Amino acid sequence: MTNLDQAGGVLTVDLDAIASNWRTLKARVAPVEVAAVVKANAYGVGVTPVVRALGAAGCKTFFVATLDEALEVKAALGAPQRRIFALNPPPARPEAAAAAGIVPVLCTIEQVRAWPAGEPAALKIDTGMSRRGLTSGELDTLAADAALIRGLNLVLVMSHLACAEIPDHPLNERQRTAFAAARARFPTVPGSLANSSGAFLPASYHFDLVRAGAALYGINPTPGRANPMRPVVQLNARIVQVRDVDAGTTVGYGATHRFARPSRVATVAVGYADGYPRSLSNRGFGYIGGVRVPLVGRVSMDLASFDVTDVPAAQLTHEGFIELIGPHVTVDDVADAASTIGYEILTNLGRRYHRRYTGANG
Amino acid sequence: MTNLDQAGGVLTVDLDAIASNWRTLKARVAPVEVAAVVKANAYGVGVTPVVRALGAAGCKTFFVATLDEALEVKAALGAPQRRIFALNPPPARPEAAAAAGIVPVLCTIEQVRAWPAGEPAALKIDTGMSRRGLTSGELDTLAADAALIRGLNLVLVMSHLACAEIPDHPLNERQRTAFAAARARFPTVPGSLANSSGAFLPASYHFDLVRAGAALYGINPTPGRANPMRPVVQLNARIVQVRDVDAGTTVGYGATHRFARPSRVATVAVGYADGYPRSLSNRGFGYIGGVRVPLVGRVSMDLASFDVTDVPAAQLTHEGFIELIGPHVTVDDVADAASTIGYEILTNLGRRYHRRYTGANG
Repeated sequence: MTNLDQAGGVLTVDLDAIASNWRTLKARVAPVEVAAVVKANAYGVGVTPVVRALGAAGCKTFFVATLDEALEVKAALGAPQRRIFALNPPPARPEAAAAAGIVPVLCTIEQVRAWPAGEPAALKIDTGMSRRGLTSGELDTLAADAALIRGLNLVLVMSHLACAEIPDHPLNERQRTAFAAARARFPTVPGSLANSSGAFLPASYHFDLVRAGAALYGINPTPGRANPMRPVVQLNARIVQVRDVDAGTTVGYGATHRFARPSRVATVAVGYADGYPRSLSNRGFGYIGGVRVPLVGRVSMDLASFDVTDVPAAQLTHEGFIELIGPHVTVDDVADAASTIGYEILTNLGRRYHRRYTGANG
Repeated sequence: MTNLDQAGGVLTVDLDAIASNWRTLKARVAPVEVAAVVKANAYGVGVTPVVRALGAAGCKTFFVATLDEALEVKAALGAPQRRIFALNPPPARPEAAAAAGIVPVLCTIEQVRAWPAGEPAALKIDTGMSRRGLTSGELDTLAADAALIRGLNLVLVMSHLACAEIPDHPLNERQRTAFAAARARFPTVPGSLANSSGAFLPASYHFDLVRAGAALYGINPTPGRANPMRPVVQLNARIVQVRDVDAGTTVGYGATHRFARPSRVATVAVGYADGYPRSLSNRGFGYIGGVRVPLVGRVSMDLASFDVTDVPAAQLTHEGFIELIGPHVTVDDVADAASTIGYEILTNLGRRYHRRYTGANG
């Protein structure tokens, strides 16, 4: 991380908003439990402060991708009564996870066989992602192996929705039915199917545990409808130069933008090496004091330029920063302009930003 | 960084290739000096081993973006006779740079005024990027201020080409002419205009110092022609599950790929949170033992799937990894498929990879 006075970008993370989003989801699916997905450094916003804030809010179950991430969450929480599931246990060395009290999500028969008998584990079922988890045929194989079943201490059976953000997608109901059938083989084991968007599907999708990721961090789990979540992230980029240019001048690599009128350009010290995507070239925008400023030219590695001609000069001097994400520009806005999804914007948030955490645990 | 046995991706950086690329550029522009641009963690590949390898090869001048990066390079080199230029000095606290012996690249009259008299500095001229640096008018203002000029200890006058990778772009010659005119105001100060692609423009573009970035890391500085640089980076992704699917099955979020024939899918533990761009969805590809395997469905946060139907089963088991960047897939190939440039692929290389350095300093 970079000191504030040296940083090209300042990232502010609202921990109260994350806790509030968790409570919103909890109220929505009650009495079903809501777990927090905090893989990939809590979607890029910073895993240690996030899990502490969520732990303080009452969240008891956390999901990460790797064993290293699980150990980081464990160290941050310091509370043995929390459960940590690792979604991507490596095929080798399951004993490292067991020794640390991490619950792996087993995805293959081989992983089930390799996992120490009696140690808690989750089982993933493939119901339509075709990515990870046991197929129906593999479940038959498992069910037929009495010794294997006896040694298996399952604490969760789970699957993953492929199209939950499209409520009427036919795959949702097919996955729900397939999951219900698979879960019926383990009638005493809690089940989990829904992610953030799944929390907004009917209650029949919620089973015993909802795994919330994107929505915790302010991404809209109901695309096309009003966002029920509070925004979490603000990103402000430091202006390092303001330049007046004549009509006809071009800006940036490849000279891809030509000014039609005499213009004022502000360059900020944030670029694609900071995870501000190059696909925002000539498509992104920011705000200064309520005025929309379009991104002009290509985003470069460490810099990006904005047309600030319409910003009063006093305002420009006074602000010193351009809002890239904040009250006027949502994470989803940035993602739309970059032709991607908010998840990718968040997980690529750069290492050179100065990071500030606000809220009860900030 | 992640231990090898836990890592979803293994990144191998060939330090000999970086040193060799530096020597290739040096031979190409001799007797002009070639500086190394190592900003953004040496374009994502790891700044400490890279600057040590380049220092051992004889490189004497390094460019970074921020003061923090400059201090990192200084610590890695440990050799006082190297010069480190910081391209984006913050507007505040220039004395922090001076005290550390870092040479800032001054981009505005205000920065020139704020910089301590007599301390070495570089001056950036805007010749057509419209991004940073003094305009011709600001140079007039500077030249008219005798006291300011007297205190200015310039060791480099520089500018930056916007379209160097397109040899016949008319902006190149306009920038060269503008730079030559600006530099004539400081006849005793060395000049630098060319970046990696600029090294492949005529010698009149080379002046006294070429600043090599992308080409050091194996990116082709001559797009459309054979790449004169040695490849530097290999990225291999661990296969975490192999699944046979029926014709008609879909894969991944949004069910965007449907298999036309009975197929075999391998899922690797690398996703867009690792900087493997989501824009590669249904467009990227990898290799297993010489067989091209297309990326199918959407890249997810921690996973991506490949159609490995054409890979012999024994090979699949034996390899255990899919080549994402390497002998069969260049960084530029990945960038093309993702609709971006190799620079963005490199600077976003993820934090969860296990990193290996090979070569003399590895």
